[in-house]
Amino acid sequence: MPNHFTFIAMTNNLEIWQDIFYPRSVAVIGASSNPFKMGHQCLLSLRDSKFPKPIYPINPQEKEILGWKVYAHLEQVPEKVDLAILSIPAGEVLGALKACCQKGVKGAVIITAGFKEIEDETGNKLQQEMAALANQGGIKIIGPNTFGMVNIHAQLNASFTPLFSRLKPGPISVLSQSGGVAHLIAYQAIDEQVGLGKVVGLGNRCNVDFVDLLPFFATDEFTKVLILFIEGVDRPRLLWEGLNKFTRQKPILAMKAGRNEFSWKAARSHTGSIAGKYELYEAALKQAGVLLVNDPRELLDLAKVLALMPSCSGKRVAVMSFQAGPGILITDAVIAHGLEMASFTEQTQKKLTTILPPLTIRTNPIDLAFARSEELFTEVLKAVLEDQQVDALIIFLLHHPFMDPRRISHPLLLTKKYTSKPILLCLNSPRGLVEEEVRHLEAEGIPVFAFPEQTIKALKGLFQFAKIKKEKGTVFATGFGWSKSS
Amino acid sequence: MPNHFTFIAMTNNLEIWQDIFYPRSVAVIGASSNPFKMGHQCLLSLRDSKFPKPIYPINPQEKEILGWKVYAHLEQVPEKVDLAILSIPAGEVLGALKACCQKGVKGAVIITAGFKEIEDETGNKLQQEMAALANQGGIKIIGPNTFGMVNIHAQLNASFTPLFSRLKPGPISVLSQSGGVAHLIAYQAIDEQVGLGKVVGLGNRCNVDFVDLLPFFATDEFTKVLILFIEGVDRPRLLWEGLNKFTRQKPILAMKAGRNEFSWKAARSHTGSIAGKYELYEAALKQAGVLLVNDPRELLDLAKVLALMPSCSGKRVAVMSFQAGPGILITDAVIAHGLEMASFTEQTQKKLTTILPPLTIRTNPIDLAFARSEELFTEVLKAVLEDQQVDALIIFLLHHPFMDPRRISHPLLLTKKYTSKPILLCLNSPRGLVEEEVRHLEAEGIPVFAFPEQTIKALKGLFQFAKIKKEKGTVFATGFGWSKSS
Repeated sequence: MPNHFTFIAMTNNLEIWQDIFYPRSVAVIGASSNPFKMGHQCLLSLRDSKFPKPIYPINPQEKEILGWKVYAHLEQVPEKVDLAILSIPAGEVLGALKACCQKGVKGAVIITAGFKEIEDETGNKLQQEMAALANQGGIKIIGPNTFGMVNIHAQLNASFTPLFSRLKPGPISVLSQSGGVAHLIAYQAIDEQVGLGKVVGLGNRCNVDFVDLLPFFATDEFTKVLILFIEGVDRPRLLWEGLNKFTRQKPILAMKAGRNEFSWKAARSHTGSIAGKYELYEAALKQAGVLLVNDPRELLDLAKVLALMPSCSGKRVAVMSFQAGPGILITDAVIAHGLEMASFTEQTQKKLTTILPPLTIRTNPIDLAFARSEELFTEVLKAVLEDQQVDALIIFLLHHPFMDPRRISHPLLLTKKYTSKPILLCLNSPRGLVEEEVRHLEAEGIPVFAFPEQTIKALKGLFQFAKIKKEKGTVFATGFGWSKSS
Repeated sequence: MPNHFTFIAMTNNLEIWQDIFYPRSVAVIGASSNPFKMGHQCLLSLRDSKFPKPIYPINPQEKEILGWKVYAHLEQVPEKVDLAILSIPAGEVLGALKACCQKGVKGAVIITAGFKEIEDETGNKLQQEMAALANQGGIKIIGPNTFGMVNIHAQLNASFTPLFSRLKPGPISVLSQSGGVAHLIAYQAIDEQVGLGKVVGLGNRCNVDFVDLLPFFATDEFTKVLILFIEGVDRPRLLWEGLNKFTRQKPILAMKAGRNEFSWKAARSHTGSIAGKYELYEAALKQAGVLLVNDPRELLDLAKVLALMPSCSGKRVAVMSFQAGPGILITDAVIAHGLEMASFTEQTQKKLTTILPPLTIRTNPIDLAFARSEELFTEVLKAVLEDQQVDALIIFLLHHPFMDPRRISHPLLLTKKYTSKPILLCLNSPRGLVEEEVRHLEAEGIPVFAFPEQTIKALKGLFQFAKIKKEKGTVFATGFGWSKSS
């Protein structure tokens, strides 16, 4: 019973996270008019994300920044402050944190570095004092040594990266121990228009760790899929328990840095955590029902698939391609990644041989070179999706004046209504030509990827999650779409 | 001696390729005013690439298309025609080819499909007649069943894909058995501004195969690196010999489709070739000094590295990162891909400990969080590059208002002058913010990649080529840059 008890204890205090991620006002301590200061970038972030609630810049040397009145000290702010962003020298942080306690602030994003992560022991001591002070005052600290956090659904960009205000809202949240990796994922989400919810840089994890945030994200209605980037953890047992509970409700994708002695050492120095043997993490995370990924780019691809698609019942893949060569490449990748090429039933094969002329490959992978009319394409699509020996379908299309994706999206979306099997589109094009159609297809539940390898890996992830669900008897849903998430 | 003899015989006839890739005029047989016809797209391609020599559309039903006078028949064209593009029904191809013979045409791009690749035996017979006719008339055929070919250096887009006119000229040529895969590579080159030379879709290889084109590409001054995409070959022994000769002069990257029985079967049906056991190809290609790649995206990345960088003498990698997390990821990838993390000499380590504050990782990977000034960055850079235990350097940078890549490119390019060690930059950013700086850095010989994994794979390719050079005692050069190629 101790597991259950621990978890209950951890979930007792969820309201405070509501206040922190949906604050009624934000103070920026160390706000600056100098664009080369973090304290200025933080204000730009809030401005660009159009945060709709009061913003209070704090700096005794400034009067007005970006049109906002500046307060000399936090105590002078006339209203309540839920969230404070601190961007001041390390030596001033404790003083500012005291002021936050007195003001009744709920959460502090401490961007300042120079604590547990530095070689000098004073850094560690300072961080311990910070934790004691925050715990006493009931303040949760994101950081120190973090870029901050964003909650797109609240138009809150509480980070030093104004670019994050370009993110579109969606069902995927990110909890990262590395600010750099959180940026990699968020920048990709901006480029590919994948919707995110909350992105949190844990930094040095002064009094807020994965363990503390998991119960909140488990109940957060705006988070449907969670991405974790882990360097090392201080409370492995509690993390494992937290994850184990979490994965019964929602899917988690994780990446663990420090897979060898070199990176392991570096990770230990980075955010001051003990990285630990990769194999141990791997086994523990897998057992907890987490899907582990080794390339940061795959994290977002898999999260997108989970957001857009229902579960995948098996690994027998049908491949349809308007270009034979890439169809063959995809076949190579299907096998290389441990999926199977579906063998069509006799009935399907007969249908295909009737529908398609003898000019083309009519077995799996199907060459659609001669099925470019809407009618023929629809017939092939139906025949394949109705085949009980097919679990999922991948379609490949190169953008070309003759094969605008618009020509297949109509029959594709129409046919999709009558099947629960996952359909993934691999649509390759120079940038700037098909983005609108991609958004349309994804809004309707068909994820689109640019490259064959990427598409197969995404489908493989969906299949792996189906296995996790089965093994753990979990109830989480996938395929809720972008729109339903907000 | 037969090998040598064969190769000499094959190289005898190189002038004809000069006429085909640098034609003094082009005829489009089957030119059309209907934008949904290939014969129209081919004209758009020539127009958009600004082909500077005469263009003769041929069609008895048309008078003028896109401002060009249309001739009813090829024989009515008043001047010589070096290259003819055929986009007419399969049944009319032989007649048109006869006209080409009579006109003294040197090469024919036959876009029309319906020959050896179809199930019906008539297709194969028709192609055999086509080959006989072409051989008799001394015409080289690109195709049939091809998208065509482009030669960016001659502003010649002889394909049905007008988008290829967006390609910028460069030292990388592509010979592909699959039109789809050639498109994947070329579209990537358009997006990433990687310069290409010639891109050829071999299609059904009527009388022109890899074997026939290798000697020309070996002597072609505009081709410095060659990419091959192979589905199957008809003359494996000759190909092996040709490649073996070629790789002594220039590097070749290749991808072979059909790695398993499913894709193998599909490849056989596609362009009518026998795909053969992948393992046999793999061994033969490796022995011939070809670098094999399994993901089409890597082909262009590796070709870019070869274009921009001199050889790499060893695999001891130094990693410098402005963000610690991605530095750790890169370290993971370095080891995962069989490279090594350099251990700095005592002297270097001492220097680094002096230069950098004790706030950061000062071993490999080096955390540059506190080396953001030009001076500090340059000092670290020099210390690392001068270390005899370092063979190559990877630098990671996230775009941020504070860390614009412009701030490091000046010291980077300055320091680069004093070292022959490869330096690769991994620069991650949302699109549209750093492209100009990337072009500047690449023009100066520093290749830039967006993602950690991608950067390591590129460096690994450079290292593998250094090994190939050594093993084969080849003389080919790398690192000639974009500009010197034209």
